[in-house]
Amino acid sequence: MPLTRTAATFAPPVMEARRWLDGVTFPPNRPLLNVSQAAPVDPPPAPLREAMAEFVTAEADTHLYGPVLGLPALREEIAACWSTAYGGTVRPDQVAITAGCNQAYCAALATLCSEGDEVILPVPWYFNHRMWHDMNGIVTVPLPTDDDLLPDPERAATLITGRTRAIVLVSPNNPGGVEYPAALVAAFRDLCRARGLALILDETYRDFDAREGSPHDLFADPDWDGTLIQLYSFSKAYRLTGHRTGAMIASPGRLAEAEKFLDTVAICAPQLGQKAALWGMRHLSEWVAGERREILDRRAALTEGFPRLAAKGWRLRGCGAYFAWAEHPFAERSDALARRLVQEAGVLLLPGTMFAPEGDPRGERGLRIAFANVDRDGIGALLERLAAVSP
Amino acid sequence: MPLTRTAATFAPPVMEARRWLDGVTFPPNRPLLNVSQAAPVDPPPAPLREAMAEFVTAEADTHLYGPVLGLPALREEIAACWSTAYGGTVRPDQVAITAGCNQAYCAALATLCSEGDEVILPVPWYFNHRMWHDMNGIVTVPLPTDDDLLPDPERAATLITGRTRAIVLVSPNNPGGVEYPAALVAAFRDLCRARGLALILDETYRDFDAREGSPHDLFADPDWDGTLIQLYSFSKAYRLTGHRTGAMIASPGRLAEAEKFLDTVAICAPQLGQKAALWGMRHLSEWVAGERREILDRRAALTEGFPRLAAKGWRLRGCGAYFAWAEHPFAERSDALARRLVQEAGVLLLPGTMFAPEGDPRGERGLRIAFANVDRDGIGALLERLAAVSP
Repeated sequence: MPLTRTAATFAPPVMEARRWLDGVTFPPNRPLLNVSQAAPVDPPPAPLREAMAEFVTAEADTHLYGPVLGLPALREEIAACWSTAYGGTVRPDQVAITAGCNQAYCAALATLCSEGDEVILPVPWYFNHRMWHDMNGIVTVPLPTDDDLLPDPERAATLITGRTRAIVLVSPNNPGGVEYPAALVAAFRDLCRARGLALILDETYRDFDAREGSPHDLFADPDWDGTLIQLYSFSKAYRLTGHRTGAMIASPGRLAEAEKFLDTVAICAPQLGQKAALWGMRHLSEWVAGERREILDRRAALTEGFPRLAAKGWRLRGCGAYFAWAEHPFAERSDALARRLVQEAGVLLLPGTMFAPEGDPRGERGLRIAFANVDRDGIGALLERLAAVSP
Repeated sequence: MPLTRTAATFAPPVMEARRWLDGVTFPPNRPLLNVSQAAPVDPPPAPLREAMAEFVTAEADTHLYGPVLGLPALREEIAACWSTAYGGTVRPDQVAITAGCNQAYCAALATLCSEGDEVILPVPWYFNHRMWHDMNGIVTVPLPTDDDLLPDPERAATLITGRTRAIVLVSPNNPGGVEYPAALVAAFRDLCRARGLALILDETYRDFDAREGSPHDLFADPDWDGTLIQLYSFSKAYRLTGHRTGAMIASPGRLAEAEKFLDTVAICAPQLGQKAALWGMRHLSEWVAGERREILDRRAALTEGFPRLAAKGWRLRGCGAYFAWAEHPFAERSDALARRLVQEAGVLLLPGTMFAPEGDPRGERGLRIAFANVDRDGIGALLERLAAVSP
């Protein structure tokens, strides 16, 4: 009997890592440092919470089904905001709202692939992308990266076959933390266009990019929607993870196809998260700018403090948005080391093996540090604890 | 090139039907009667809305990710409540929370099937079940029903092949409105057990069953979770459609598999809906009982008023929970008639063709009337308008 869809993939890494904590006690002078998940740990700011309470008590439609592709006002706001931010043209009918950015990825793939099709993912990759492929009969084609963690379009070109349907980029990258240069993103767009593929560009962490202005100019191309599918999440910028609100920006024809998938798997994205996202876009840009400054300061703390680890043979391969990607100097695999770090250092993080093909050296050497929730002092303590770990 | 996943299925029926209204005006003395969707049109009762506002303003975890399989307190409440209501034993580790009941269905199928596997669906079926099959390479095997719309286990047995993985029952039925007798459900359980299949039992409309007490005794079997996968929705009982909260009751091993799917497609069900469901279960049983009485009264209004249609050749094949299934006496197909009803009768409903295989007579003759949102007067007007339609 063939494997079921779910038997074809692995257990959710974040949940698995959480189970490593079972039965472990952390002394008061060395509490757990959890850098395993890329998620805010605080609620949205009070004015947004107050607005949400009002939506719940005073607006009946908060509690009812909405259109499958999302609230028209939110789609319009995104279109207008994106057009300005990216210096291009995005129309409301090119915007769909999803129950989180993971769901946007699943929907995009459902419009592109069938059993046995191939999708190219740079390594290290985001594990849920790989899991969705596994569960859908999609072959994941790994695209190795160099030590700067940037994928090379020419190398990608050599991996394209008659079954390839898309190349996926995540920038700023999860798990690698690197920001892809605009020219590199454009080169991938050109490659995809020339070969009739879709370019899926996941910009979940866009709001914490260190660069000022637009991170790429793809939307300035009037024909962008023939190639580009952009994904976004409201979870990080507005601390709405629990409400599940994401977006997929693509051609109207592709969104009509995605509507079939979203209707069946979700019916609609939750209404409250959509209203909160809209309120946030209209009222919280100053607040988000402050959040970005704080994250960038934490990033600086990590890069400034890393030399003490470098002296012990560690290497920092990427650092940006929520993530750093560090390579450890030990003989053991990263998954064994990660379990040991819980016990010996009181640190929970995800090993590179969760983000790479079986046996891949980048996975076995790498560790993802989701540092965004840890302040300067905590980052100092984290680096100190890692530096104290022996082989 | 093979069809993409989404190209293998049809557009969402509810959204398609909504587009039939475009450009149509309804005179003030004959406003639109919309009996197309099975969803509350009013918000939850005020005490629940107030509780939800408190969750939003005062509880940080409302806004954060939660466990993939749902809030432990809600899983415990469901387990305890189900054990009592069904006279059996359901443990918290046999309960998972999903972002709506559609998602529970998708997750269940992901744990059961691979490309080319078969699932048996009684006709008429729920269209999103068929759509999920189409998008996942699952072959839908139609199980014809007699005029009482009840499926026959012996007939089902003849359809089982080496690729069959499950039989799906929906009771009370969407779209047919019929309540499956406990003995019939048990007979299907026995068949599935004997043949090594899963029995998926969707009880989304359970709270509006006209029968007192447990609608079946499957949970009284200590080995129920070797065969049964039960699905449930909080959307109808507590008017939470916009918050996306459903449940899947199955073996812990199956839920561990479902966790992979839910993590990837949703990460977690929205937290506010889960908290609202828990509050509702603890505080609103009297209120839900009143809602049920009202729905049962509307059902009575429909069955009592139907003779005026019967005199014109119409037949009522099923009526219960939110739905009636009527067969029209005209030569045209139900999809053509449904469009005509918008224009000529100011009635929006879904044609049987949306719930049946292409060319199936039950689909071409049938119309689904989602009457739950229409009061006695409205049901009288609906029947009057339908009776006035000529061939």
